[in-house]
Amino acid sequence: MSQTSRSRAAVILAAGKGTRMKSSLPKVMHPVGGRPMVDWSVDLARKAGCAKIVVVCQPSQGLLIEHVASLSGDIQVAFQDPPMGTGHAVRCAADALAGFQGDLVVLYGDSPLVPTDAIEELFASLEEGATVGVLGFDTRDPGLYGRLITSGHGELEAIVEAREATPEQLLVTLCNSGVMAAGADDMFRLLEKVTNDNAKGEYYLTDLVGLARGEGKRCQAVRCGEEDLIGCDSKADLAEAEAIFQARRRREALDGGVTLIAPDTVFFAYDTVIEPDVVIEPNVVFGPGVTVRSGAQIRAFSHLEGAQVGQFASVGPFARLRPGAVLDQAAFVGNFVEVKNVHMAEGAKASHLSYLGDGEIGAGANIGAGTIFCNYDGFFKYRTTIGDGAFIGSNSALVAPVTVGEGAIVGSGSVVTKDVAAGALAVARGRQVEREGWATAFREKMTAKKAETKRG
Amino acid sequence: MSQTSRSRAAVILAAGKGTRMKSSLPKVMHPVGGRPMVDWSVDLARKAGCAKIVVVCQPSQGLLIEHVASLSGDIQVAFQDPPMGTGHAVRCAADALAGFQGDLVVLYGDSPLVPTDAIEELFASLEEGATVGVLGFDTRDPGLYGRLITSGHGELEAIVEAREATPEQLLVTLCNSGVMAAGADDMFRLLEKVTNDNAKGEYYLTDLVGLARGEGKRCQAVRCGEEDLIGCDSKADLAEAEAIFQARRRREALDGGVTLIAPDTVFFAYDTVIEPDVVIEPNVVFGPGVTVRSGAQIRAFSHLEGAQVGQFASVGPFARLRPGAVLDQAAFVGNFVEVKNVHMAEGAKASHLSYLGDGEIGAGANIGAGTIFCNYDGFFKYRTTIGDGAFIGSNSALVAPVTVGEGAIVGSGSVVTKDVAAGALAVARGRQVEREGWATAFREKMTAKKAETKRG
Amino acid sequence: MSQTSRSRAAVILAAGKGTRMKSSLPKVMHPVGGRPMVDWSVDLARKAGCAKIVVVCQPSQGLLIEHVASLSGDIQVAFQDPPMGTGHAVRCAADALAGFQGDLVVLYGDSPLVPTDAIEELFASLEEGATVGVLGFDTRDPGLYGRLITSGHGELEAIVEAREATPEQLLVTLCNSGVMAAGADDMFRLLEKVTNDNAKGEYYLTDLVGLARGEGKRCQAVRCGEEDLIGCDSKADLAEAEAIFQARRRREALDGGVTLIAPDTVFFAYDTVIEPDVVIEPNVVFGPGVTVRSGAQIRAFSHLEGAQVGQFASVGPFARLRPGAVLDQAAFVGNFVEVKNVHMAEGAKASHLSYLGDGEIGAGANIGAGTIFCNYDGFFKYRTTIGDGAFIGSNSALVAPVTVGEGAIVGSGSVVTKDVAAGALAVARGRQVEREGWATAFREKMTAKKAETKRG
Repeated sequence: MSQTSRSRAAVILAAGKGTRMKSSLPKVMHPVGGRPMVDWSVDLARKAGCAKIVVVCQPSQGLLIEHVASLSGDIQVAFQDPPMGTGHAVRCAADALAGFQGDLVVLYGDSPLVPTDAIEELFASLEEGATVGVLGFDTRDPGLYGRLITSGHGELEAIVEAREATPEQLLVTLCNSGVMAAGADDMFRLLEKVTNDNAKGEYYLTDLVGLARGEGKRCQAVRCGEEDLIGCDSKADLAEAEAIFQARRRREALDGGVTLIAPDTVFFAYDTVIEPDVVIEPNVVFGPGVTVRSGAQIRAFSHLEGAQVGQFASVGPFARLRPGAVLDQAAFVGNFVEVKNVHMAEGAKASHLSYLGDGEIGAGANIGAGTIFCNYDGFFKYRTTIGDGAFIGSNSALVAPVTVGEGAIVGSGSVVTKDVAAGALAVARGRQVEREGWATAFREKMTAKKAETKRG
Repeated sequence: MSQTSRSRAAVILAAGKGTRMKSSLPKVMHPVGGRPMVDWSVDLARKAGCAKIVVVCQPSQGLLIEHVASLSGDIQVAFQDPPMGTGHAVRCAADALAGFQGDLVVLYGDSPLVPTDAIEELFASLEEGATVGVLGFDTRDPGLYGRLITSGHGELEAIVEAREATPEQLLVTLCNSGVMAAGADDMFRLLEKVTNDNAKGEYYLTDLVGLARGEGKRCQAVRCGEEDLIGCDSKADLAEAEAIFQARRRREALDGGVTLIAPDTVFFAYDTVIEPDVVIEPNVVFGPGVTVRSGAQIRAFSHLEGAQVGQFASVGPFARLRPGAVLDQAAFVGNFVEVKNVHMAEGAKASHLSYLGDGEIGAGANIGAGTIFCNYDGFFKYRTTIGDGAFIGSNSALVAPVTVGEGAIVGSGSVVTKDVAAGALAVARGRQVEREGWATAFREKMTAKKAETKRG
Repeated sequence: MSQTSRSRAAVILAAGKGTRMKSSLPKVMHPVGGRPMVDWSVDLARKAGCAKIVVVCQPSQGLLIEHVASLSGDIQVAFQDPPMGTGHAVRCAADALAGFQGDLVVLYGDSPLVPTDAIEELFASLEEGATVGVLGFDTRDPGLYGRLITSGHGELEAIVEAREATPEQLLVTLCNSGVMAAGADDMFRLLEKVTNDNAKGEYYLTDLVGLARGEGKRCQAVRCGEEDLIGCDSKADLAEAEAIFQARRRREALDGGVTLIAPDTVFFAYDTVIEPDVVIEPNVVFGPGVTVRSGAQIRAFSHLEGAQVGQFASVGPFARLRPGAVLDQAAFVGNFVEVKNVHMAEGAKASHLSYLGDGEIGAGANIGAGTIFCNYDGFFKYRTTIGDGAFIGSNSALVAPVTVGEGAIVGSGSVVTKDVAAGALAVARGRQVEREGWATAFREKMTAKKAETKRG
């Protein structure tokens, strides 16, 4: 959080219907990098030092309201009903901010990639005397965006809508992002002067600049990258924001010393932590909550969520780590293995075709191919505990709750329903019986039947 | 199918050797979007209202001939042997079209992306009085393509080969695609006038325009996109056509409200149907015949063919649905699970490492990790039926034909060979036996042996 | 190897610290296309006819030194300690080349993509009378690269550092790659004249050109592509080199008649051999040592290393072939199947969820879903042998060492610990027992307990 002498708050506009998303999920709840867009804005506000956050929603957006309520910190929901423009939306946050005397930034719930330093700069402009600060972006193709008309050191003279711009103004490439900051007092005082005397009959936040300038106040433009300000109104926008996010994270990972054989095929979440000198093969997907320690390798076609991968551990190819998978140093999870809520101690191995759910695997233990932790009885989940150095023979089912002692061996194909003592061998399978010639006879019979079927 | 007063037919040229494909498969049988290229042309012809279709092949292309014969509708094969140019190829279709009085379009079996409306427009040009209609495309790099010399509203004056073009004509960027339409009578009458008086000694369809113009008839050029007209002579062309197809389908999916986290990693087939508000994670491959209903999610690394995924159902990651997999509402197929020819009723779940082939799974039934439907005895396939609410313990093998009754439970690690009554518990596994200290002794013995082996 | 009358040797500079890699692995050991970069340079030297190769390392690079020592042929390590520039590095190889009279090329251990013909051309320039040959590349953005100042037919007049270049020289786009060739005598004689009278106090190999020119000797520039000369100092460089390598291999595969549905999603290793008319679906990763014969198909999401795939064999989707997997004609490996060190004879099939490690599978044998070769007892690995036409029922565990005879059948869910005779049936599983009403009672009890838990 930023150190500042003036207190800061944020209003996040999130009431947009998002019809173009064609989704039952409220627009700002769609994720980028594995995190709802609105959370990106909340996180941005916090990082920029806003102790108080108000999210403006529509009363009908139950899921969003519930989600915001679940977030920690001083965060409130304000309602805008019906929506009557961005200026109106900010005014809807006034009650929630009653008594707040500091600086206020208006953010958007559908712009997940705005960088913290841009908001810091916006607040700084207020601290340096500007009445209104506006975040702008330079673009090659300004089209219908409102133009920020500036003079000298970014001083903002006006925001001119494209349709009202002179030919000379149309050449300006610095455009209005809509992100705006002002002292809370100025913000709400000026918003009262905004009228809806326009084609759509809406109250525009943008009008603040003209009103402040009319009072002889100084306004300031702050620049940031066009990609930083992408707003997501459709699934195509969302995919574009995701692509920008991923490209940045891949570049960061490479710069941080992570080996990405094919960077474009690796997908990160917002909070993925990969230490230097980790090797990531092609086609790896990280969901939220993953940490991978130095020297580990994540092989091709792996999927990780909520997992910790220790130093020199190896995962995949074709492995899935689910929440609660904790691999200590040099642990090994191989192909077609799923690990959920299991701690694998140092050097523990599960190399092939296993489901390991809810348990503890001791250091150096070896889990054979096709092992299943039977953790669920249809009602409750139970834990499996495997001692250090134990060896679970292939194709075994361990019916939890069950403990296999240190150094014990479970014979291949066993169904283990009772605890196994340390150092013991447990076998639980049928006796092998052989019927001589049976297969030959069966084959003859079935071949005849098959021929008959075809004739029939 | 288009409504029109004149009947329509198509000749599809498919006799090309396709040597550059370096394949034993006839060129036009190579798929784009999971469908042989020739089928794209057949489909195009049908959508453009052609009731009658003739595919011109070489007699040696057995696999292609067989394939065309298997298609439904009024479709015939005509032979061109040996190939003597495009004009000759169309003439080879004359017998098959004997008595046909309507309009005729000439299509190519290796151009899978031609849009229907371009063909509609071509037919319309005939209905509006043109004798010959030619499909052209604008390109930045016309190179060696024949140029369409037009005047005014697309009226076509001539097709000029690049090597015979004047410098001024070479600047023309509208090029000949080879796709051409004419009344059947005109087409065959003019084709008789075409000579092979050229370097290659071939009869060129292109000459029709000059001949028609020589008779004072009007010809018409119709434009379409360069990408639409890609022709596939090599594996590189094929990959390019596939890429164009996929890019379009991804864009359509996004526009239709489908969430594609990483659009470039999702592969559609020609007939994939994805409803709005479906979420598709990175790295998903759709083979032909898949429908996914609204609210469902297809997680990363999944592969689907011939499958139906119901509302709010969840598939993957690492799931494979094969033909006949039908997932009702809220059914769940998890990682390393293969489903083939199985109906999973509402809320049925198979979360881990299972092979479910040929059967029926009742509503709310839970299939444990590592379950196998043993559907094959080496000769015939048999069905497994699981009742509503049944619970199949992990690592079980169900030896079909077999029925597990409603609400029954199968104990983990069982091999079920006999039907299980509703509400019953079935267990079929060995008794667990333990030998105290055995593992410790074994470990000592083997450690010694291993040390000996290394010394040896 | 090239035919030449003069003997050739190479010095490969590999002592760079590679700090920007942020890795414990020596820089030149990082792989591109599955092979350490230094091996690319060694391979290049050999292909260009160098019988003798010296790799210049730092004494601290233990792993690299060990690796070079393990390579076959006349290859030596020389030490540079401490590093004092490229000229110094080459001089460090003098002892190792004592007595060598032929031509010498200086290569870099971190430039994996230099083409053989460029080095051939460099040696040819010496044979045609040049004293020094220098490899250059044309670039749009020469920036800080040293410029090769040439006259007429590539005759090299000088190498001018960017910071010392005239404005006119800065316009030159042919830049110095650092790759240089000279007769060994000339090389070491001129290197003795190189001084470290420069800002960094280093001895630059580049100075050779000025020195040779000062003696009135002719120098020659040889051109190659900018991409060919990429040097890898960071993980980002490495990813870029990998991308260039992959793009080239994909193009080569397409041109060679391989069907790549989505070329960008297929990853080759340096030595991957794919015959024409192989179909490769999206998302396939080839590690080193793979050969795929004509008519085979590799389906989506497959991972192959050290494997041979025979004609018309089929692999995947979701298959993993590990070293020693040998699939004969028409063998079939399906989803979630891992094959390691197993020979599958003609037409053998393992379609679902199996681990096949260390063994032999006879022609036409069928391995049921969920089969495990239990090849490891924690200490040693053992082999499983399946006879021709045998049928292994689903969910079986074959505890190696074990042999299933020709045409034998193993019942589903068996744990086979003893050999099975040809034509016999072996079953090893528990008897099915049913407890009427048990599941119903259990469900009632657990439902009550669950309700209680929630209340509690």
